[in-house]
Amino acid sequence: MTNKPRYAEASMEAMYRIFTVPEAPGSTLGNIDQKLSQNLAGFLQEHIVAVEKDLEELQKDFSDSEIPEKPIFVSDQADFLMDKLVAQSVHTASPSFIGHMTSALPYFMLPLSRIMMALNQNLVKIETSKAFTPMERQVLGMIHRLIYDKNDGFYDKWMHEPGYSLGSFCSGGTIANITALWVARNCRFDKDLKNGFRGIQRAGLYGALQHYGYKGAAILVSERGHYSLGKAADVLGIGRDSLISIKADARNKIDLQELRTRIDELKADNVAIIGMVGVAGTSETGSVDPLDEMADIAEEIGCHFHVDAAWGGPTLFSKKYAHILKGIERADSVTIDAHKQMYVPMGAGMVVFKDPSLVSSIEHHADYIIRKGSRDLGAYTLEGSRPGIAMLLHSGLKIIGRSGYEILIEQGIEKAHAFASMINAETDFELVSEPELNILTYRYVPAFVKQKLATATPAQVDEIHEVLNRLTKRIQKNQRARGKSFVSRTTLTPEAWDRRRTIVFRVVLANPLTSLEILQDVLAEQKHIASTSACTECMDELHGLCDDRPMHAHAV
Amino acid sequence: MTNKPRYAEASMEAMYRIFTVPEAPGSTLGNIDQKLSQNLAGFLQEHIVAVEKDLEELQKDFSDSEIPEKPIFVSDQADFLMDKLVAQSVHTASPSFIGHMTSALPYFMLPLSRIMMALNQNLVKIETSKAFTPMERQVLGMIHRLIYDKNDGFYDKWMHEPGYSLGSFCSGGTIANITALWVARNCRFDKDLKNGFRGIQRAGLYGALQHYGYKGAAILVSERGHYSLGKAADVLGIGRDSLISIKADARNKIDLQELRTRIDELKADNVAIIGMVGVAGTSETGSVDPLDEMADIAEEIGCHFHVDAAWGGPTLFSKKYAHILKGIERADSVTIDAHKQMYVPMGAGMVVFKDPSLVSSIEHHADYIIRKGSRDLGAYTLEGSRPGIAMLLHSGLKIIGRSGYEILIEQGIEKAHAFASMINAETDFELVSEPELNILTYRYVPAFVKQKLATATPAQVDEIHEVLNRLTKRIQKNQRARGKSFVSRTTLTPEAWDRRRTIVFRVVLANPLTSLEILQDVLAEQKHIASTSACTECMDELHGLCDDRPMHAHAV
Repeated sequence: MTNKPRYAEASMEAMYRIFTVPEAPGSTLGNIDQKLSQNLAGFLQEHIVAVEKDLEELQKDFSDSEIPEKPIFVSDQADFLMDKLVAQSVHTASPSFIGHMTSALPYFMLPLSRIMMALNQNLVKIETSKAFTPMERQVLGMIHRLIYDKNDGFYDKWMHEPGYSLGSFCSGGTIANITALWVARNCRFDKDLKNGFRGIQRAGLYGALQHYGYKGAAILVSERGHYSLGKAADVLGIGRDSLISIKADARNKIDLQELRTRIDELKADNVAIIGMVGVAGTSETGSVDPLDEMADIAEEIGCHFHVDAAWGGPTLFSKKYAHILKGIERADSVTIDAHKQMYVPMGAGMVVFKDPSLVSSIEHHADYIIRKGSRDLGAYTLEGSRPGIAMLLHSGLKIIGRSGYEILIEQGIEKAHAFASMINAETDFELVSEPELNILTYRYVPAFVKQKLATATPAQVDEIHEVLNRLTKRIQKNQRARGKSFVSRTTLTPEAWDRRRTIVFRVVLANPLTSLEILQDVLAEQKHIASTSACTECMDELHGLCDDRPMHAHAV
Repeated sequence: MTNKPRYAEASMEAMYRIFTVPEAPGSTLGNIDQKLSQNLAGFLQEHIVAVEKDLEELQKDFSDSEIPEKPIFVSDQADFLMDKLVAQSVHTASPSFIGHMTSALPYFMLPLSRIMMALNQNLVKIETSKAFTPMERQVLGMIHRLIYDKNDGFYDKWMHEPGYSLGSFCSGGTIANITALWVARNCRFDKDLKNGFRGIQRAGLYGALQHYGYKGAAILVSERGHYSLGKAADVLGIGRDSLISIKADARNKIDLQELRTRIDELKADNVAIIGMVGVAGTSETGSVDPLDEMADIAEEIGCHFHVDAAWGGPTLFSKKYAHILKGIERADSVTIDAHKQMYVPMGAGMVVFKDPSLVSSIEHHADYIIRKGSRDLGAYTLEGSRPGIAMLLHSGLKIIGRSGYEILIEQGIEKAHAFASMINAETDFELVSEPELNILTYRYVPAFVKQKLATATPAQVDEIHEVLNRLTKRIQKNQRARGKSFVSRTTLTPEAWDRRRTIVFRVVLANPLTSLEILQDVLAEQKHIASTSACTECMDELHGLCDDRPMHAHAV
């Protein structure tokens, strides 16, 4: 069988072989597969080229817009992918890739992923998923319990109950957030049949506002809230201007006073408050809003309280740090991502609901699947067809366990604190946001600039800040292009700098393989980049602004 | 290294090993992995238990809501998954699983899936995807070209152009449809800055309708449209009642006369028409709407024309049958799923836009990623973080090629026609919907019932129909439970039966391994089931209604 050429032949017979004859062990793809399963880290290290290629250059390999008329050999495609795609990918599992939320994967995830792919289940309905449906319901139950800690009786009653759902599994945090706010919106403008209103689900937002006599609908969240919330406000028809952005305080937490003020204003303006979103681990600084106080306010005004814990949710695994999320158990809905701090491959998001009947507000049916009364999960999800990736989280929860995840979470938080101390001990760096969880931000500020800033006039600070912003950007891009390590960057408005727009390095410490030595190297590399020609212009400008001596004396 | 126990240990050292030490070749999971890669079909055949277990029974294995405190061994979890999850899954790749749109996978998809999982790229931004971004843009370009067939110059200009996008890759057809209608809605109520309107994206639907002076907004689609469109109408704030369902004709295609009538009514009622959806391959019957005529109407009234070709889009690969989709090239947007007739694993959906600037209506940014001017694909997608599954379609398009997909598509359509002839030749079956593509519906109607129906009064037809509906349901459930083969069921309202609600078997013929013999067996099994005790009651009732002789004479 395997003597036949590996396709590159358009015939029914070749098409048949594509579905029936496996890759030979010695074939190109067979070899890659074997190497991958035996030495993942080595494979990635060996095959991903670290140094950044110009994107225009990369595009050349993907510039043909025509679907090839004739099939090509599997081995040719495998070679192409290795040279042009894999080699030019990002080594997200590298311990020195600390700029984003994508980190390393436990080894067992890979063979399990293949089982999942081979089974090719579709969770929208029982008929294409069978045992995967109760399995996913169990995983949602476990996450629900992690957050809400209800008793056995609660889960015995609701976890597998058709017509109800403890949450919904989806491709990621964005869909989870949109789903939560969709539920919040639909519950807020529920049916009022006595007065002839069939509910927003049928009548739409315009009809709902007219019926209930409001001139608008709003959602409140801190300015540090995730950008998916703006997308949700757009998609749901509320409008981005009605996602009310509340100032964050010096620790990047929502300002409760301003929250109250804005609520009063909205009420006075006759705007319906659909929901309030607390953030448990902001994307940029890892900060956690005062959830308990927000829950009080939500209760007081009677609105849906959603917590976006896409990043920070797994902190609940840690007995030591779970208290940071106090109040999350009072949320009506919570977003949590498995592909972030639960070490499952992309994309595995979830939203869970305190009350398992909430999903009835978004329930939908069809004649050929998800019929009324069925156990099909598709009746309560924004997505339709979905893969069985819950199986990977099920395995993570079993193989790593609560106590294993606790260790992983705690090492991240403690490493972040150690890195913060390291930065504080450096004369040429400034810690911009203290880590509350395992995310922190900082920037390169040479000692001579720090000195000047201490006594500078506001106008001088403005000028220096502007150059520092360009310098940070320059260093970040340069470091990324060199390919040794990677931090990301964002723009904050720190209170300490009177809310000036401040570009910072952003570091996310979730990979357990990231050592303190690596972090020390990251700082050393950044200092080095600052001394190279890439930064000469910025450094010269800083000297010009900060030194009493003339600028050229300091030029490199 | 591999002598150490495979976890079941909560220590930092064990956690470290989880990320660094591969599964040993002889381990439980290693063995499964090897078997899977060497003999996928055999593996599935051997491990998936065909006979349906009661769901209540299955749930028992997934009833614990507590996350285990202590880690368990990888091998224990592997054993559990094989026994309780894999064994109780649905064999979607089986050639006799012809009830839904999930079919077999080409072999090469599996090792490629593992590479994709191991790389764990995140397509939301270049910094976590690099070459995957131009690769995905190329795939979208290829699909765009398949549909719109623009010239090289068009793709040279737009395919990789930051700030524009030929489409968006997503988890499936539902998200694709929602994205298309989101774009349609936002374009319909665009900015009107001269008159102080900032666009629906910012002002919301209520503000938009008020500004433009409409009392509602509507979308039109045939009654055979996919249920995701109702979900879209709900999510987007339009409301399900404003998804205007147009009657389908005897061939399950939208009735153009009724479409025109409803458009006139909406206009008279001062309702804004956001868009019109043509279906290219309805989920239930595989029918294709008259797209060219719909495009004329959309042009005439100036509304967005979306085509939901999630299923039927790949018909364009076939020179012989592409004409069925004539007019699709005039659509403003088209949904097409790679995990359906392009044989990519779950979930790979796409929406493409004729005009690459349309996506600006849903554009969004953030400070830490998808910044303005970046090439990050996340600025134009409903989802945020997304896996690099476009790589699998890229490989399918290369390894199978246009001419390979053509063969796959044509065999499906021709097999459906052959099956239809087979059903027509049977005395005890009734073909309910002729296949236009590769989907058909039929039901079991014993010859004696057919005879009676030919001369029955409408009231008698009603009665007989009601029993036939129960019988069809009974046979379908029974066949599924027996596990030898699987067809799905749905409810249609055929013109031939004066739009009576008619439950039918639904067959989808995409798996190239499904032979005519298998189809013959499906019919034989259904006839057999009808003769068993499971159907006695229904059959007795039919005899009672159809026979002149007393019922008991025919009881089985």
